[in-house]
Amino acid sequence: MAQDDKVMLGHGSGGSMMRRIIDDVFLEAYGSDELLEGNDAAVLPAPAPGQRIACSTDSFVVSPLFFPGGDIGHLAVCGTVNDVATSGAKPAYLTCGFILEEGLLMDDLRRICRSMAEVAKEADVRIVTGDTKVVNRGHGDGVFINTSGIGFVPEGVDLSGANIKPGDAIIVSGTLGDHGITIMSCREGLGFSADIRSDAAPLNHMIASVMQAAPHVRCFRDPTRGGIASTLNELAEQSGVEIVVEEELVPVKPAVAGACEMLGYDVLQVANEGKMVCAVPADEAEAALSAMRSSKYGEDACVIGHAEAVDAGGKPRVLLKTAFGGTRILDMLVGEQLPRIC
Amino acid sequence: MAQDDKVMLGHGSGGSMMRRIIDDVFLEAYGSDELLEGNDAAVLPAPAPGQRIACSTDSFVVSPLFFPGGDIGHLAVCGTVNDVATSGAKPAYLTCGFILEEGLLMDDLRRICRSMAEVAKEADVRIVTGDTKVVNRGHGDGVFINTSGIGFVPEGVDLSGANIKPGDAIIVSGTLGDHGITIMSCREGLGFSADIRSDAAPLNHMIASVMQAAPHVRCFRDPTRGGIASTLNELAEQSGVEIVVEEELVPVKPAVAGACEMLGYDVLQVANEGKMVCAVPADEAEAALSAMRSSKYGEDACVIGHAEAVDAGGKPRVLLKTAFGGTRILDMLVGEQLPRIC
Repeated sequence: MAQDDKVMLGHGSGGSMMRRIIDDVFLEAYGSDELLEGNDAAVLPAPAPGQRIACSTDSFVVSPLFFPGGDIGHLAVCGTVNDVATSGAKPAYLTCGFILEEGLLMDDLRRICRSMAEVAKEADVRIVTGDTKVVNRGHGDGVFINTSGIGFVPEGVDLSGANIKPGDAIIVSGTLGDHGITIMSCREGLGFSADIRSDAAPLNHMIASVMQAAPHVRCFRDPTRGGIASTLNELAEQSGVEIVVEEELVPVKPAVAGACEMLGYDVLQVANEGKMVCAVPADEAEAALSAMRSSKYGEDACVIGHAEAVDAGGKPRVLLKTAFGGTRILDMLVGEQLPRIC
Repeated sequence: MAQDDKVMLGHGSGGSMMRRIIDDVFLEAYGSDELLEGNDAAVLPAPAPGQRIACSTDSFVVSPLFFPGGDIGHLAVCGTVNDVATSGAKPAYLTCGFILEEGLLMDDLRRICRSMAEVAKEADVRIVTGDTKVVNRGHGDGVFINTSGIGFVPEGVDLSGANIKPGDAIIVSGTLGDHGITIMSCREGLGFSADIRSDAAPLNHMIASVMQAAPHVRCFRDPTRGGIASTLNELAEQSGVEIVVEEELVPVKPAVAGACEMLGYDVLQVANEGKMVCAVPADEAEAALSAMRSSKYGEDACVIGHAEAVDAGGKPRVLLKTAFGGTRILDMLVGEQLPRIC
């Protein structure tokens, strides 16, 4: 219908136009049994006995909406799937809330929804309930998406950023900085290189393999906003350890390293959307690495450092042993580097 | 600290400024054990055996942020608590995702968060995980909030909008149109009357009482955007019944009725945020009503109509018997009436 080429305020009205966008766009892309029931809440089966529930939420405001390697919809599914999976849970269900700006092209929304459906299928999760709001032109920016995720933690699994012990190996699942530099490049029209694309990916299957291969794995965390520097600082503080990273071991694509140098960014503070950091006891590091490397999204996995005890009177921190043999403190990102990266 | 008087892009960076807004604003208002753990996903206890999980999501973009009877934070908790409760579940946990606009006053955000904490306490739910994004000035509108909710459905409970049977009574828990007219009045500076204030309220305890008093209750639904007209049309269609509403029985405050008349609105299409529609077998209507009326938010509850079988060859619909003795079809809201009502 011609009047539905663009999103209008009426599509968020709760009335017949909203019904149409739900049927024609959302259900068309990812209609699940629960969504088709049309109730205000989705009712989901009881988990298996002993399983705990993991939940996480993330809003996505990335600009631009489409970029090499993904789009906001793809990112919204991957981001929440990955957050739920870091707890050791098997992600199962997603909720999806859209905040649309009046005037958004309906075809762009369809493309975003198809992308969500595709990666949800890959991650083996279902979108079971949703919500749509429309804000007047100039009060939003195309599309914002919130996804919340529910998963189930098997009995006996207890992963936490607070579990790291001195001696543990710190592993990263692949090259760093790809997502952040891709968005930056799109946004500023820098066009660095055809090699640069977002790494956004659902990592739940990879995490499950690592958990099987390295049963004493301590924790997973995805180094998104703030980059691996912020993630490692969080982990050091939660666990009360010092984390030592060897710069030479950190995997970075040459094109990304070049872009960071040009822009004056520290790649360790640049966002990733398809990478996982994990800490494992040293004697399970090889097994964890080989599980990661046999996953589609973990081919470049490597050990980048290890945890140490904090000196008496010292505080948890992250140290970087530089390629030149020096050592410096690796801080959390301060201020803002690349707004609206996810 | 002086630099934190307003929200800045760095507060969404994933780095140390984000850490500060989380600690100083969010944890200060509603720090739960799960939030304090600082992991990317909250891990929650297993539900009791046989319980199913109910989940729902809602984004809130109401303008203005503060209004008589509530604010966006209060609304964001009530809305999702109510959606989860409509399934017959006991709401237990909320996630909370903020999309903040650069320049928002930090004191406004604090006020919103305190309001969320207060009503979450009343509703007996906990905010267990969250997310914060900041968009640049002019690309958002102060605060948008997404809340997703998780609750547990007791064994044997099976409420659905598809359960209504001919003969069932249709009950509404109180006066209609209060929220929509309040927002309209604020936004347009109409200042109708001091009596007009939003009805936003958490209705989960009231729903629980009704379920106990009327064990065969068919369904609950909260008539938010699109008003009770849209809600009843959804229910009629889901259940394949005709719903007949008697206009004379519909409770409306005089000030709201007057405002609707002046503005040319049908109060049945105006949004409510603290009302519940329910369908019950006729012989349980009295019990349901008295349970509602003994709740703080259901004093004005009344039966407004009933369900009938659809004539052979006919379609599900909603009929309104007017005060003048006529009958007309009551349609879903078409187009948009009051954008950004919630």
